Amino acid sequence: MPISKDQAREVVRRLSRWGSIEELAKRLHAVSEQTRPLPPDVPHPSDWSAEAHALRVRAVETQGIEIPHLAGRAEPIPPASLRGNIEQFVGMTQVPTGLIGPLRVNGVHAHGDYYVPLATTEGALVASYHRGARLASMAGGIAALVTTEQVQRAPGFVFTNIAEASHFAAWATDQFERFREVAGTRTKHGKLIDLLAHVEANHVYLIFAFHTGDAAGQNMSTFCTAAICEEILATTPVAPLSWYLEANMSGDKKATVLSFLHTRGRHVMAEVTLPRKLVQRGLHTTPERMAEYWRMSFVGGAQSGSIGVSGHIANGLAALFLACGQDVACVSEASVGVTRLELTEAGDLYCGLTLPNLIVGTVGGGTRLPTQRECLRILHCEGSEPGKEMAAKFAEIGAAVALAGEISIVGAICAGQFSRAHENLGRPAGP
Amino acid sequence: MPISKDQAREVVRRLSRWGSIEELAKRLHAVSEQTRPLPPDVPHPSDWSAEAHALRVRAVETQGIEIPHLAGRAEPIPPASLRGNIEQFVGMTQVPTGLIGPLRVNGVHAHGDYYVPLATTEGALVASYHRGARLASMAGGIAALVTTEQVQRAPGFVFTNIAEASHFAAWATDQFERFREVAGTRTKHGKLIDLLAHVEANHVYLIFAFHTGDAAGQNMSTFCTAAICEEILATTPVAPLSWYLEANMSGDKKATVLSFLHTRGRHVMAEVTLPRKLVQRGLHTTPERMAEYWRMSFVGGAQSGSIGVSGHIANGLAALFLACGQDVACVSEASVGVTRLELTEAGDLYCGLTLPNLIVGTVGGGTRLPTQRECLRILHCEGSEPGKEMAAKFAEIGAAVALAGEISIVGAICAGQFSRAHENLGRPAGP
Amino acid sequence: MPISKDQAREVVRRLSRWGSIEELAKRLHAVSEQTRPLPPDVPHPSDWSAEAHALRVRAVETQGIEIPHLAGRAEPIPPASLRGNIEQFVGMTQVPTGLIGPLRVNGVHAHGDYYVPLATTEGALVASYHRGARLASMAGGIAALVTTEQVQRAPGFVFTNIAEASHFAAWATDQFERFREVAGTRTKHGKLIDLLAHVEANHVYLIFAFHTGDAAGQNMSTFCTAAICEEILATTPVAPLSWYLEANMSGDKKATVLSFLHTRGRHVMAEVTLPRKLVQRGLHTTPERMAEYWRMSFVGGAQSGSIGVSGHIANGLAALFLACGQDVACVSEASVGVTRLELTEAGDLYCGLTLPNLIVGTVGGGTRLPTQRECLRILHCEGSEPGKEMAAKFAEIGAAVALAGEISIVGAICAGQFSRAHENLGRPAGP
Amino acid sequence: MPISKDQAREVVRRLSRWGSIEELAKRLHAVSEQTRPLPPDVPHPSDWSAEAHALRVRAVETQGIEIPHLAGRAEPIPPASLRGNIEQFVGMTQVPTGLIGPLRVNGVHAHGDYYVPLATTEGALVASYHRGARLASMAGGIAALVTTEQVQRAPGFVFTNIAEASHFAAWATDQFERFREVAGTRTKHGKLIDLLAHVEANHVYLIFAFHTGDAAGQNMSTFCTAAICEEILATTPVAPLSWYLEANMSGDKKATVLSFLHTRGRHVMAEVTLPRKLVQRGLHTTPERMAEYWRMSFVGGAQSGSIGVSGHIANGLAALFLACGQDVACVSEASVGVTRLELTEAGDLYCGLTLPNLIVGTVGGGTRLPTQRECLRILHCEGSEPGKEMAAKFAEIGAAVALAGEISIVGAICAGQFSRAHENLGRPAGP
Repeated sequence: MPISKDQAREVVRRLSRWGSIEELAKRLHAVSEQTRPLPPDVPHPSDWSAEAHALRVRAVETQGIEIPHLAGRAEPIPPASLRGNIEQFVGMTQVPTGLIGPLRVNGVHAHGDYYVPLATTEGALVASYHRGARLASMAGGIAALVTTEQVQRAPGFVFTNIAEASHFAAWATDQFERFREVAGTRTKHGKLIDLLAHVEANHVYLIFAFHTGDAAGQNMSTFCTAAICEEILATTPVAPLSWYLEANMSGDKKATVLSFLHTRGRHVMAEVTLPRKLVQRGLHTTPERMAEYWRMSFVGGAQSGSIGVSGHIANGLAALFLACGQDVACVSEASVGVTRLELTEAGDLYCGLTLPNLIVGTVGGGTRLPTQRECLRILHCEGSEPGKEMAAKFAEIGAAVALAGEISIVGAICAGQFSRAHENLGRPAGP
Repeated sequence: MPISKDQAREVVRRLSRWGSIEELAKRLHAVSEQTRPLPPDVPHPSDWSAEAHALRVRAVETQGIEIPHLAGRAEPIPPASLRGNIEQFVGMTQVPTGLIGPLRVNGVHAHGDYYVPLATTEGALVASYHRGARLASMAGGIAALVTTEQVQRAPGFVFTNIAEASHFAAWATDQFERFREVAGTRTKHGKLIDLLAHVEANHVYLIFAFHTGDAAGQNMSTFCTAAICEEILATTPVAPLSWYLEANMSGDKKATVLSFLHTRGRHVMAEVTLPRKLVQRGLHTTPERMAEYWRMSFVGGAQSGSIGVSGHIANGLAALFLACGQDVACVSEASVGVTRLELTEAGDLYCGLTLPNLIVGTVGGGTRLPTQRECLRILHCEGSEPGKEMAAKFAEIGAAVALAGEISIVGAICAGQFSRAHENLGRPAGP
Repeated sequence: MPISKDQAREVVRRLSRWGSIEELAKRLHAVSEQTRPLPPDVPHPSDWSAEAHALRVRAVETQGIEIPHLAGRAEPIPPASLRGNIEQFVGMTQVPTGLIGPLRVNGVHAHGDYYVPLATTEGALVASYHRGARLASMAGGIAALVTTEQVQRAPGFVFTNIAEASHFAAWATDQFERFREVAGTRTKHGKLIDLLAHVEANHVYLIFAFHTGDAAGQNMSTFCTAAICEEILATTPVAPLSWYLEANMSGDKKATVLSFLHTRGRHVMAEVTLPRKLVQRGLHTTPERMAEYWRMSFVGGAQSGSIGVSGHIANGLAALFLACGQDVACVSEASVGVTRLELTEAGDLYCGLTLPNLIVGTVGGGTRLPTQRECLRILHCEGSEPGKEMAAKFAEIGAAVALAGEISIVGAICAGQFSRAHENLGRPAGP
Repeated sequence: MPISKDQAREVVRRLSRWGSIEELAKRLHAVSEQTRPLPPDVPHPSDWSAEAHALRVRAVETQGIEIPHLAGRAEPIPPASLRGNIEQFVGMTQVPTGLIGPLRVNGVHAHGDYYVPLATTEGALVASYHRGARLASMAGGIAALVTTEQVQRAPGFVFTNIAEASHFAAWATDQFERFREVAGTRTKHGKLIDLLAHVEANHVYLIFAFHTGDAAGQNMSTFCTAAICEEILATTPVAPLSWYLEANMSGDKKATVLSFLHTRGRHVMAEVTLPRKLVQRGLHTTPERMAEYWRMSFVGGAQSGSIGVSGHIANGLAALFLACGQDVACVSEASVGVTRLELTEAGDLYCGLTLPNLIVGTVGGGTRLPTQRECLRILHCEGSEPGKEMAAKFAEIGAAVALAGEISIVGAICAGQFSRAHENLGRPAGP
């Protein structure tokens, strides 16, 4: 966001698929264990034995989801199949992967109880996210909602003076429909949806924004923008002195306020209200203390000059991205967000999370690879299906996971357990 | 940075190990291929066959570095050995890993020609970094230098009013020596090296900074700070109404201006001057064009509201972190930096990179794991050795890798090859 | 900026008034002293006597511009006439005002040679801006161009959950035309031109943007937004739990990246190319040195975490605002900008300035007051005239003044005169 | 802040002048009207007549403070006396000035009930600040506390490579004591108190920080730094290729995160707790609503990418700076701060404000001028007195004024009066 008028129409169109506001609100509403029991927990959380591992694998596979590569019983794949993902291949880095859940997600696209694979080398991370997921699920689950989506590419053009630069900017922005057609010749799944111009003296940055379907879409955006730039150079009324396909206003691979405000990838929100009793029993603290902590830590984060303010979103997203074949470098941008915890009038704890830069996909890139594909399958988010927005589904689960992690770490800090958890789980077993 | 007077003394002490400024400058000086020939390139860069893979593995192993896990011929390790790295283990995520190099690094700690493993699922990444590494090596290598280092933990304390808050802040800061002793009871490798107080009305944030030896050190910092907080609560002249072990001013797992300015992890710099001919032949562009691009992209990045301004540092660091058992979530903070390209008077291209938040370690966390350990071994950065600063060595290599990537991407954009590279290498082979 | 498609059409419409790009470029082109001689300098720059003062007053008044209040020969005005500008009036603060120029401005709206009044208490400021103005004028003058313009007001709405919040945001954005009509009932001069929605969990911020004619427009925007909010509350399909007329996303009275990117007030650019000889003779330095300084100081500013990067824009704008009855508190936002100095291929110095938040007016507020009105008259920017955009004219002059000051300070720093200038002019005359 | 260990000792030294924490807390404690009655209000707040004006002037003068220039009955001063404040003097800009108060300030340096002159052209501003001041005074007054203070100048040095740059940075930082001596030869009132080095590849920024006594101190810092730079060039072990007296890391005349975190000018805090009844009666809203508004507006401000988060600090500071001869351009930096409103357990409203960049002085610059001097006299902050910290006193009053304004505007927004106040007071009286 901010949502422009054009984007608003698109969001309205999307949300209206769920009918009235009442129907949308209902779909996002908490579902209690009484109404729909939660499936069983990931088995044997505190057991590092091979047997416990086997039980967890079986728990997944009895749902009909085969995970031979993840479980370690498949043959290595031939290097030739890695073309498109790696060059100068020397081997496979292996990253331990744990399962959390069930995590109840009440989203538009993701709607159900999920087991979520998280790949990490950092002890306590999986346990902490699992705790948050369990607690949120017991509270009826996490509501999640994708609103806007776009991926940018931002070429830069150098002119002789501000007159030419401004003229070019105005001209280019006015060619939107033609550029959309040009983009359409380069992709079936993508679509140019917006174009902004930023003029700084005799420099013009054009910011092209694309819908990229179920792909994360950086490459698609690059190819389409390259084609558009050819069109620009062929037809511009004023020739640039020089130009560059990307001039650092796309937000690719970095946190920026521009992306924070305008959406990069998907803008997803998640929320859950934790009843006071659950906070007390599950987190050993109170809603008041968590709300006070939120205020102090939010002001602290804002003072530190961060972009967005939150807890440790990068932890959960990096682990999810890694397990599910996302571009892990994008954690630098995707982990930007706003966490908000507030005491409700009833004395419960409202927990909301907004991730405006969640750039993810379920096709292309790492999602083609064996273990990554299996992990997407565990989430029921593999590939692309007509009539479904698989990447949006994945994004809603991602936001729910991140919120679960925010709840858990704040709870731990408020209950004075933050250090102890890492002492117990962040080191190898003693003798 | 900024380096304080205390830190300056420490940096002076470190740098003086290399003797005079002349000797330090000499150690960081470019070494031509004439003076010291470069070892052979990673074999068969454009070949995805099993045979090419085997040759690359052999190229590593003939140096005496066994990489059975990475190469895929070792047995899976028992789950029990993963305690401390994962909970609720379900399997191993496998990430394709490519080798780049040789990369000549003329650092204080890293000094030699390195092959660097990069784990990624994104096509073209390895090829691009390899190109930059080769070019920089042909220019005599990348100078690299670690200056300051510290890891922070920032507890927060709530008081009744600003009088108490200010009094507490002043008192606490004055207890530095005692806190250092307390920290010393919790760690052999770490050391409290600084303490700052930030007062916002009746809230006080204490920012404890630690040297953490060859460990990345977040946990060590947490444990020590927890111990210090106990001491604080036992001895403070004015009791806080409440307090929290971390109040979001440590910069953990997020990009912040505070960390950018003060160092988090290690502050590392890297530089190389590319002769004009090498730019023309190797990158198919000119120093003038790359310098113009730098100016435009730097202004673009600054306008987008980023923290530091650079190209795609996150790509290289995420891949290096992943291969070498670093905490990948830290890419959100570590990828912050400043890239600067300038035309020299002689018409060559000066390329400098500053990474103030490179938080890495060679012991603890993921560095214990098999493939990760093998990758560190390929870099001659495994574990800890008396008299050596292994993590600083790793940091210098990391900065050199990141700079190689900056050079390569800017070259590609300036030569109009940015889109094509991704078309060739970012997709599976066609039929 | 960034200019949206809608805004682009508006900019095209405006620019096209000047005909083709060639005609626009011509209007902004430098005009040499040979082509059109510069009027005489402000008389007796180094003379603080009453006689010199009288000569300067006469220099203004011989142009037919009476300035009795400024010159100190008018009677004090009755307090009753100050209603609307002050409450609890106790007297008049008197601020010394100096005149610089002539400053040649080649703008769309401001087109001529201007004497500019600057009110300040800081010695050396007027002299420094005068030097820059003279130099730029000798180079043919400063091109200046207003592109987009808008003033924001951003009410906030609290909802029960993200479903309602999103629904509301989409609904509201879709009511744009109706809101425009409502706004039209509250103002003749203003117009609602854009509406963005920003959703953060269950909070919605609506950002209304107005054209406000020749008024700075904060009050007009407030009144119109208040009327629109009434309409919202009467017709919304989902009622907010609470709401606030301004929720801190308008950028009012503070520097923000949001305003920097989106325009607040007017987005104005200014540029001039200084021939090498003029740099050498007038500033006693070289284009190379000024370009190097720009690079270093730009990187310095970006590292300090500023919004936009420039030199001392606030100095000139504060002095101009003060003299001309602008809201001086808005210097906090208006002084955000980007200064760029680059060596041209011909060895000259390109100087560009972009001010995206120049919020000014020529009617309303302080422009009603006697000395302020006289100062606006000196600039030929008094009041409002049909067919003229007086506030845009004032904005173009303001940008030109700011650029003159940037050139002067960078020149002084590069020539090693920065400290000396303040020693000479920043202290009272000695005995 | 953050306060370093060295600065902490200084703060301890200062605070300890007030004895124990109990004594300090007592000095800052609220003083009820019962304990010490408030002096009378500024007379006739809603009367714009000449008579009301005369009564207000008399109210000031009966305290023994003559204000002939402000009141408009003094002769204009001779232009020659303006040397040091203006060049090319053409006349006096006259800015209407209103009086608010009494404002009870319970500060370390400012301790009493103050009438505060505010110069502005914006209707409603004075009335709003007056309302906040009255309310805070009725609550026992605003506690205010200056902690750290420093003014920076940041020269930049260019080197051949990072080895030389790092060596220089370490060397320079180690010369602190010598540089302090050099600075001492240029000023009696100032003192070098800190020195930081920031290295970005082959560029070094040295950040010198000075105590500047009762002067705002920018010029003093410049002169001292110029002298230090001469010393540096004469003695450096490694010569820079070029250098500049200011390289844009001082924070002069702009908002930066660096200054926000490190103090520029004075770091001042102010606070008051408003009893629930006072909020209800005086602001027509509730502490709950104001606390909710604070949360929403704080998150809004953080999302907009501001530095610090607050309401409209610039309004009050610009008006106070203008009346009292401060450098109004510094509002761009001084208006950065953090406002925090929170519901207390007792149901009252805690209001805190932190201004880390309040750069002010009571000698030098505009404080020499007649009306400005009179306004400082009204505040009992004129000039410099042995054993008193006049500028610190002025800073505490400034912070209290700013907090009063924050309270008033938030109250107006929460009570739905924000728009109406401007309609009533922001326009001239109707016919």
